[in-house]
Amino acid sequence: MLKLSVITTGGTIEKVYSEQTSSVENLDNQIHRYLGRLRLPDCDVQVVPLMNKDSLEMTDADRSKILELVKQVLSDREALVITHGTDTMVQTGLYLKQALPQLKVPIVLTGAMTPIGFEGSDGLQNLTESLFAVRVLGPGIYLVMHNQAFPIDRVRKDRETSRFVWIA
Amino acid sequence: MLKLSVITTGGTIEKVYSEQTSSVENLDNQIHRYLGRLRLPDCDVQVVPLMNKDSLEMTDADRSKILELVKQVLSDREALVITHGTDTMVQTGLYLKQALPQLKVPIVLTGAMTPIGFEGSDGLQNLTESLFAVRVLGPGIYLVMHNQAFPIDRVRKDRETSRFVWIA
Amino acid sequence: MLKLSVITTGGTIEKVYSEQTSSVENLDNQIHRYLGRLRLPDCDVQVVPLMNKDSLEMTDADRSKILELVKQVLSDREALVITHGTDTMVQTGLYLKQALPQLKVPIVLTGAMTPIGFEGSDGLQNLTESLFAVRVLGPGIYLVMHNQAFPIDRVRKDRETSRFVWIA
Amino acid sequence: MLKLSVITTGGTIEKVYSEQTSSVENLDNQIHRYLGRLRLPDCDVQVVPLMNKDSLEMTDADRSKILELVKQVLSDREALVITHGTDTMVQTGLYLKQALPQLKVPIVLTGAMTPIGFEGSDGLQNLTESLFAVRVLGPGIYLVMHNQAFPIDRVRKDRETSRFVWIA
Repeated sequence: MLKLSVITTGGTIEKVYSEQTSSVENLDNQIHRYLGRLRLPDCDVQVVPLMNKDSLEMTDADRSKILELVKQVLSDREALVITHGTDTMVQTGLYLKQALPQLKVPIVLTGAMTPIGFEGSDGLQNLTESLFAVRVLGPGIYLVMHNQAFPIDRVRKDRETSRFVWIA
Repeated sequence: MLKLSVITTGGTIEKVYSEQTSSVENLDNQIHRYLGRLRLPDCDVQVVPLMNKDSLEMTDADRSKILELVKQVLSDREALVITHGTDTMVQTGLYLKQALPQLKVPIVLTGAMTPIGFEGSDGLQNLTESLFAVRVLGPGIYLVMHNQAFPIDRVRKDRETSRFVWIA
Repeated sequence: MLKLSVITTGGTIEKVYSEQTSSVENLDNQIHRYLGRLRLPDCDVQVVPLMNKDSLEMTDADRSKILELVKQVLSDREALVITHGTDTMVQTGLYLKQALPQLKVPIVLTGAMTPIGFEGSDGLQNLTESLFAVRVLGPGIYLVMHNQAFPIDRVRKDRETSRFVWIA
Repeated sequence: MLKLSVITTGGTIEKVYSEQTSSVENLDNQIHRYLGRLRLPDCDVQVVPLMNKDSLEMTDADRSKILELVKQVLSDREALVITHGTDTMVQTGLYLKQALPQLKVPIVLTGAMTPIGFEGSDGLQNLTESLFAVRVLGPGIYLVMHNQAFPIDRVRKDRETSRFVWIA
C-alpha cells in the first residue's frame, strides 16, 4: 500500500466556470472529485489542499509555503504529487529541487492546459499519469504531462503549442 | 418529418476554452456537434450558423441580420430554434415578436448559463428541451430553458440566481 | 412550482454493467442521480422507486402495483413521469389509460434504448424531454422519447430501428 | 518520438451495448476512438486491430496469431501495448514471455473491468497508464491496470474484488 499525498495549489487544472463572472476562476480544490473516478486499490491517497492560485500570481512566499508543506508531508509519506499552474510549474519544481538535495522519494508536478471539468481537458490524463509515475520513477523531481516524464531541470513550457518540451 | 432550422448566434452556450488566452471565447459554432448526440428520427434538422457573438456585444445591425435570416428560413421550414447569449436573449426575442406579428410557427430562443462542453453545463438540457418544445408549442416566440417555456414577453433574466423568471 | 413525481420501474434506462456477471442488469434505481444533473428550478420533483424489472418480465400483478401507486401519487401531485422498459411500455400505458378514464393531469412514460450511463445513451435526452413534456402537455397518457410525444394509443415500438413509431 | 503500436484483441474494454440484443458484445475496435482523447505529442501511435474476442473464448490459435503479430510489429516499433480481456490476460502474457526470451522493449497488456464507454469504466485510466508505462519501464512483459505495473509472472486476477493482485 503506497502512502501518497497530493498537494493542490490551483492552476488551470482546478479552474471552474463561474456563472456570476462568466469567466474561469480558481475557486476551490477540484482534484479530490476526480481522484474518486480512478481505481487506486493499492494506494493510500491523501489530498492536501494548500492554495487556489493561478500560477502567474504565485509569490516567493507561496513557494516557501509549498516547500514547508512538502517537508512536513514527506516525513511520513512515500510519494508526492503536486498539482500546479503550468506557467510557473518549472520554477516551483526547480525551487524544490534546490531546497531538497537529499530527496529519497519521487515528487511529480502536474497540471493541465484546459481545466479538468471541460471537454477536451488533459487534466485527468495528467493526473492519472502522475499517480502512476510516482509508483515507477525513482527519487527526484519530475514534471509529468501528456504521456511524458521530464526531470525538472530538463523541461520548459512551449506556449505556442501548449505543451512541455525538452531543453538540451 | 418536421422541417426544423437551428440558427446559431454565439453566446455562452457556444463558448469554448482557449488555451492560448486562458479564457472562454466565442470562436465558432458548437451546436451541430451536440445535435449529433441526440436522437431526432422524425426531424429534418438544418443548422445555420449566423454569428459567434457574446450577446452583450450584439448591435441593432446584428438583430436586423437575425430577423432577415429568420424570415428567409421560415419561407420553407416549419419550426425554428435560435441559440443566443442569455444577457440579451429577451431583447432579441421581443424585437422578432414586434417584426413578425403574423407568425404561423413556433420560434424558440435558448442558450446556457455554462458553456455546453463544460461540466455542469445546462446547454444540452436547454437544447433538448427547445427541440422538443417546437414540436408541441403553438405559433409564437418563446424562451425555453431549465424545464420551462416562457412566452417572450413574460420573462426576464435574474442574474443573481442564473435563471429566467416570470414577469407579472 | 410544479409538483411532479417520477416513478421508476426499471427497464433498460436503469440498467448498469455488473463486473461480477459481465452483463447489464437492473440492480437499483438510477434516475435520481441523473435528475441531479438537470436544472429544474420551478419544479418540486419527488422520485418514487417502485421496482427494478426488465419490462419483458413485468406481470399483471406488477402493472396493478403501478396503477395503485399512480392513483396514490396523483392525489397530491400535478404531473407524473414513469420510467419503464421499452418492450412493454405501451402495454402498461394502455392499462393505465383504461383504468384512469377521468385523468386530470399528464402522465408521461419514458425509457431508453441504451442504459443511461453508457456512451450514446438516449436516456438523459428522454428524461429531459419527459420532464418538459409534463409542463406543456394537457391531461392524458403519453409516451415521450426521441423528440416525440405520442398519445399512448397511437404508438408502437419498432424493434428493427430501435424507435417508436405512429400507428394509424 | 516514440514509435508505439497498440494491438487490440477485444475483451471487456472494447465491449459495447447492442440495442438489438440488449447485451454487451465485442463488435469492433473501440481503442482508436479513445486514443484521440489523449495528448500524445511525442508519440507516433499506430493502432493494429487484430481480433474482437471475449478472452474466455481465446484459443491457442488466437495466441499464436498474437505472437506472430507482436514479432512483426517489434521489427520496427519501440514499444507495444496490447488490449485484451482480463480473464486470460495473464495466460497470454506468459505465453508471449516464454516465446520472446530476448525481448528488448517493454510490452504492456491492459484491459478493463467495465467497458470503456460505460460510466465508471476503468478503461481510459488503464489505457492512459499503459501508454505512459511503455515510456518509463524497461524491457519485459507487464500487466498495467489500476495504478499498478506487474511483471507478468507476478500477477493473478482476483475475481471477487475485480482487480489484479501480486502472487508471491
